[in-house]
Amino acid sequence: MAEAVLFELLHLEMVAQVYKEAESGDTEHGKSISTLEGMGFRAGQGLIERFTKETPSFKDELDIMKFICKEFWTNLFRKQIDNLRTNHQGTYVLQDNRFRLLTPVSNGKQYLEEAPKFLAFTCGLVRGALSNLGIDSTVTAEVSVMPASDASQTSWFPQLDTSF
Amino acid sequence: MAEAVLFELLHLEMVAQVYKEAESGDTEHGKSISTLEGMGFRAGQGLIERFTKETPSFKDELDIMKFICKEFWTNLFRKQIDNLRTNHQGTYVLQDNRFRLLTPVSNGKQYLEEAPKFLAFTCGLVRGALSNLGIDSTVTAEVSVMPASDASQTSWFPQLDTSF
Repeated sequence: MAEAVLFELLHLEMVAQVYKEAESGDTEHGKSISTLEGMGFRAGQGLIERFTKETPSFKDELDIMKFICKEFWTNLFRKQIDNLRTNHQGTYVLQDNRFRLLTPVSNGKQYLEEAPKFLAFTCGLVRGALSNLGIDSTVTAEVSVMPASDASQTSWFPQLDTSF
Repeated sequence: MAEAVLFELLHLEMVAQVYKEAESGDTEHGKSISTLEGMGFRAGQGLIERFTKETPSFKDELDIMKFICKEFWTNLFRKQIDNLRTNHQGTYVLQDNRFRLLTPVSNGKQYLEEAPKFLAFTCGLVRGALSNLGIDSTVTAEVSVMPASDASQTSWFPQLDTSF
């Protein structure tokens, strides 16, 4: 619990720091997103290594995605992904109806444009985790609803480059 | 457990990122330390607020330092401070014989010079926590022993500016 709070605070500081650095230099917006994504990627690689230590090997791609939605997500965000869909051709949609790291921006639609910077690190986490399991992917995310409460509906779109 | 690993990985990424930014610009070494310390400070303020929600008020300075050594440290690092000393004039020494965030540099004395960058964030955490409890302080740290194993002896020196 305490450590979850720590993760949220640390993530917030990290986002603020990366953006502050970018503002003080002549770095463009996209660079900050990719910096955060890269940090997430490396952290995701390290995490999945530890999380899967005692997990029997996965039987297919869908099996891996289910692990990401359940164990991986729960370990990081104390809840599962709420909805998983796939076109069975390497594209997945993971929907989280209450994504914790968005809390700082979730008080109103006017902050919706701020959302991408709070999603980039986690896109990287997922891409890094998949990468360590042998799957190259592109992971994007978007926030489709941002109610006045602290809830939000975030969708993650891992597109896998490799099939089994 | 998972979140503790996440904290360690995130901290590592954060240190790497702050130093990378500094290298690409003309920022000096001391600036990176102070950036990390500042991030820790803000995180420490947020953390202590949540950690002390259900704690009765503290009766004195020593009482606060004991809380930092026990509850605060355990929440963050899954272990207590091993030894607390004070001169009863506002100077404290908190000794941790196995500081988790030093693990990346603990494989040999040759990396000892790298230690300060892994201590700065936590110095800030302590200073931020104390600050939110109404105590201005200066917090420094040093590593006195760095054996070949992954253990290390880290001492934290909060010097309090205010007395009760």
